[in-house]
Amino acid sequence: MTPPALTNPDDAPAAVVTAVDWTADGTAVRIVDQTRLPADFVTLELRTVEEICEAISALRVRGAPAIGIAGAMGLVVAVAPFVDESIDRFRWRVAGAAERIGATRPTAVNLRWALDRLLRRMVDTGDDPGTILAVIRAEATSIRDEDRRMCREIGENALHLVPDGARVLTHCNAGALATGGIGTALAPLYLAHAAGRRIQVFVDETRPLLQGSRLTAWELQRAGIDVTVLCDGMAASLMAAGGVDLCVVGADRIAANGDVANKVGTFGVALAARHHRIPFHVLAPSSTLDPATPDGARIPIEQRAARELTHVAGRRMAPDGVQVYNPAFDVTPASLVTAIVTDRGLFRAPYDFST
Amino acid sequence: MTPPALTNPDDAPAAVVTAVDWTADGTAVRIVDQTRLPADFVTLELRTVEEICEAISALRVRGAPAIGIAGAMGLVVAVAPFVDESIDRFRWRVAGAAERIGATRPTAVNLRWALDRLLRRMVDTGDDPGTILAVIRAEATSIRDEDRRMCREIGENALHLVPDGARVLTHCNAGALATGGIGTALAPLYLAHAAGRRIQVFVDETRPLLQGSRLTAWELQRAGIDVTVLCDGMAASLMAAGGVDLCVVGADRIAANGDVANKVGTFGVALAARHHRIPFHVLAPSSTLDPATPDGARIPIEQRAARELTHVAGRRMAPDGVQVYNPAFDVTPASLVTAIVTDRGLFRAPYDFST
Repeated sequence: MTPPALTNPDDAPAAVVTAVDWTADGTAVRIVDQTRLPADFVTLELRTVEEICEAISALRVRGAPAIGIAGAMGLVVAVAPFVDESIDRFRWRVAGAAERIGATRPTAVNLRWALDRLLRRMVDTGDDPGTILAVIRAEATSIRDEDRRMCREIGENALHLVPDGARVLTHCNAGALATGGIGTALAPLYLAHAAGRRIQVFVDETRPLLQGSRLTAWELQRAGIDVTVLCDGMAASLMAAGGVDLCVVGADRIAANGDVANKVGTFGVALAARHHRIPFHVLAPSSTLDPATPDGARIPIEQRAARELTHVAGRRMAPDGVQVYNPAFDVTPASLVTAIVTDRGLFRAPYDFST
Repeated sequence: MTPPALTNPDDAPAAVVTAVDWTADGTAVRIVDQTRLPADFVTLELRTVEEICEAISALRVRGAPAIGIAGAMGLVVAVAPFVDESIDRFRWRVAGAAERIGATRPTAVNLRWALDRLLRRMVDTGDDPGTILAVIRAEATSIRDEDRRMCREIGENALHLVPDGARVLTHCNAGALATGGIGTALAPLYLAHAAGRRIQVFVDETRPLLQGSRLTAWELQRAGIDVTVLCDGMAASLMAAGGVDLCVVGADRIAANGDVANKVGTFGVALAARHHRIPFHVLAPSSTLDPATPDGARIPIEQRAARELTHVAGRRMAPDGVQVYNPAFDVTPASLVTAIVTDRGLFRAPYDFST
């Protein structure tokens, strides 16, 4: 079906938050400070390498796509004041800034990928700092625009899954705050809402870092969408009560067989959905498809700091010295997934992502 | 098999915390202040109706059995100073104290039941306040002793389920802190540990009130048992990694068909256990068996305050005005339960609790 008309077809529906973009004059990167949400909606304008690095390190900007865009734009604005220096000195400044920004989140593959795109564009662009600056600025804008388009394509490809009246459960934040556009898992929800469909979204709070209650609930509420938060352990109860029609989640990596690595807790949602015969959809960029990984067992799972569980808002919530199990992700087996939707289309088992 | 010998067979293994008991001289009720855990281990001595009511209202003592014992003992110590008054005045004091204590937790059936036991014993005990006081003191002690025995019988009936080397997952707090004895779901773990079996216990933190990380982890660690906390959404991941041999949970009410109402999140644990073919055992007092309720669909589920989800440690974690789904309990269908163990024995489907 035809997606809803929006005032600016290249942009997000009006009320959807923009996580990262240029300022109007292009001299800074404007981000939403996600550490201040949901209590305060504060935007920051980042101009220096120090400011960019601090914002990424402190998770003021988060979500793989959004970090990549912020890093690329940050590199541009940080070197722009030095465009009148010699070409050698200017190249040295760009390389140094890229190295410092790239080191802020060692595991953020998307950040390095975005910075490398800018550095590669410099290679054949001659010896004029002004020209180089213009070229890398255009490249950073392209990264943003490609991400916006990817979000929108996921949304359009999944829009038919979200009919009028749909009650949708999601986990973590695969929304506008994680991308340059309208999000991944949340993209069809924004489009359905913009199309006038009445939808109701249930958001798992997503312990330990509460991205669901802090971020997803905030951005959906801001867009005027009916939103309800619940604890992760309450999803099965809500489904049993008949309160959920479908589930949508994002993905960090999708193996060749359709096994899905995503924020820990996703697997439990999928198990509850299967028990209640509720569709469970994974919505993610095609860049997360990993044909080199045959199945989920080969996906390494990062263990994170104990303090994320033992302390909340600075207060101790578990006894001193207790052991902690804190995996960042879990793997939902392909057998529990109803469909995988990317910017390239909708896939069902048996998966062939090469089409 | 024979349960392990303990230094005092009527009492808990030495290192197991006692949630509620008389002080040595019997003039006060000593409780562990559970609102201070896990940061501080503080015991309180309660002597007046005001102190008893405040402790129960503020959840300093919690868990149906522990509240019942604290209420009964509290009634005794609160009226003891007035034993030299006239019989009419003394009876009036007892009735008034019982009414005030009973009103602190309107839904705590066990509290009213315990107070009623004391009031009924007064009826045929003549007109001497000293005799009445002795009789209700003995009755309160009986309630404590019956609860201790119930805990121990559950532990003995379930001990064979916890072999040496067992890795056990539990949810919420069905432990010593909730009872007068060694708990219900945790009882066989304490007995297995006392018998020298090496066990490892994984504890769901149990949002929203974190009884798992705050209370269960604390009491197990204090008893010298190997304990690891995890978020509720991580249990499925831990099972997939092969880390769990069996699950033990308590119950608030068990329907005639074996459906189990327990702390919300229990259902999700049961679904994950079934997917991974891990035994899922429910351990509870026979008083939670409710033959008048044919199945779980007839069990009313209390919805609790939104603030339990939206705020942690006083800090807002979800946007202002967001809707909240916060059921206190969920219902695990009997089909997901491997066995139900009470003080009367071990039951398997099809359930016949009349034996």
